[in-house]
Amino acid sequence: MTEVLVDGHASDRIPVDDRGFLYGDGLFETIAFVGERAPLWARHMARLACDARRLMMPPPDIETLAGECWSLAAGHDRCVIRISLTRGSGGRAYTPPERPATRRILARRPWPIDLDRQRRDGIELHTSPVRLAVGGELAGIKHGNRLEQVLAAEHARRAGVDEALLFDVEGNLVESVSANLIFRLDGALATPPLDRSGVSGVGLAWLRESARETIATRRIGTAELERIEGLMVINSVAGIRPARRLDGHILAIDPACRGWQRQWDRLFQCAD
Amino acid sequence: MTEVLVDGHASDRIPVDDRGFLYGDGLFETIAFVGERAPLWARHMARLACDARRLMMPPPDIETLAGECWSLAAGHDRCVIRISLTRGSGGRAYTPPERPATRRILARRPWPIDLDRQRRDGIELHTSPVRLAVGGELAGIKHGNRLEQVLAAEHARRAGVDEALLFDVEGNLVESVSANLIFRLDGALATPPLDRSGVSGVGLAWLRESARETIATRRIGTAELERIEGLMVINSVAGIRPARRLDGHILAIDPACRGWQRQWDRLFQCAD
Repeated sequence: MTEVLVDGHASDRIPVDDRGFLYGDGLFETIAFVGERAPLWARHMARLACDARRLMMPPPDIETLAGECWSLAAGHDRCVIRISLTRGSGGRAYTPPERPATRRILARRPWPIDLDRQRRDGIELHTSPVRLAVGGELAGIKHGNRLEQVLAAEHARRAGVDEALLFDVEGNLVESVSANLIFRLDGALATPPLDRSGVSGVGLAWLRESARETIATRRIGTAELERIEGLMVINSVAGIRPARRLDGHILAIDPACRGWQRQWDRLFQCAD
Repeated sequence: MTEVLVDGHASDRIPVDDRGFLYGDGLFETIAFVGERAPLWARHMARLACDARRLMMPPPDIETLAGECWSLAAGHDRCVIRISLTRGSGGRAYTPPERPATRRILARRPWPIDLDRQRRDGIELHTSPVRLAVGGELAGIKHGNRLEQVLAAEHARRAGVDEALLFDVEGNLVESVSANLIFRLDGALATPPLDRSGVSGVGLAWLRESARETIATRRIGTAELERIEGLMVINSVAGIRPARRLDGHILAIDPACRGWQRQWDRLFQCAD
């Protein structure tokens, strides 16, 4: 069964001169399909189009992507499809060609193991030794330059924890390796700003629009981390997972968590 | 004639699950071969080994790389070989496999056109609208996350200039898109620090050790840029090129430039 489509053709290889490979010159979306439905599809596509504009790439062909995604998802109860959109081949070293022909690589992946358990029982995190660089140019974009996340994930693996909190070099909390964060501090729910680093997640965007509770944007540093009363991570595939242990300390499951999880489940069961 | 070797085999494709493609999870070196000699080889390999350590990747197999590079360079007067060393396939999303098997991709490219002319007549630069992120984690490393350089190169292409000066988000000069910088200010030669962003170039390292003149490390901002008396860019393929025009203003060729260029030429003609 076809697992990967490269520009619409079944293939498991890409050209060595693809700029995504050479420079990380591209974008990606990781999309949850449940019962062949992708309830966050429109948000993923809106982000992809917005990020392509920011990277001065041609806009994605959403119709073609949809056709190919659904053909890959067909017959699967649950799966994840990664869409990679690169600036294609050509150009002269870093300089892109004048009229880049983007390349799309769609790969179906099995549903991650452990997610159901993690959503129920929560996850363990540590504070990553990796500090994110600060700079507005790429902030918020889901681009192919993910070495900071790879390094943080490797540290987390070696430390035996599920996830890691990432601070930037100035000591501000940003995100976890593969999710956005929601914390409770002084009784109020908030999420860190993503204007200088991090990925602007579609799962978080959905939640902020859908939740009854207000989720503010609040900058916090390492000192305030000790005072947080609850912590959740959210991404578009795993949904909402509570943090149960942070740097060895037990955290209670936030009062908002279970309700949001039910809301998430309804989204994936009932959306078109 | 073979142009690309993937793990030693002639091929022009890599697997779609290569982590270099998925996350920019890898390193590269771009090496000048002249008369089948690569005078900066040892420096390239030392940097590759050092950077692999910093990225927590297995060390490169230098002997194998040498054998493959020289087989690709054989019969060519001048060529450039790009070595890409990725963390291979596998792992779980950002998390690398416990024992990654790196993948090496060696590609021979023709000698860049225009270099001889640019070394003689100089290049035109502008100040890039792209500001580099600031963060020590990846600073100095020649890694596969080069979107900032791609964006800066695209702006330079649209502006019709050869190269671009890159400042970081805090307003400090760092490098050009594909080279390190040497400037003269208050009569003294200096190069910007690379401890928070930028690539630590092997061409620059060679020059600082080989030149009679002292090249200091000096942090300068946009305001001081207007006062510089001379500017050169240096990388391991193009050697030393004088800046003749910066943001529309004419710059004189620095007194050190021609002597350094002759020294560079001797290196490439005489080294083993």
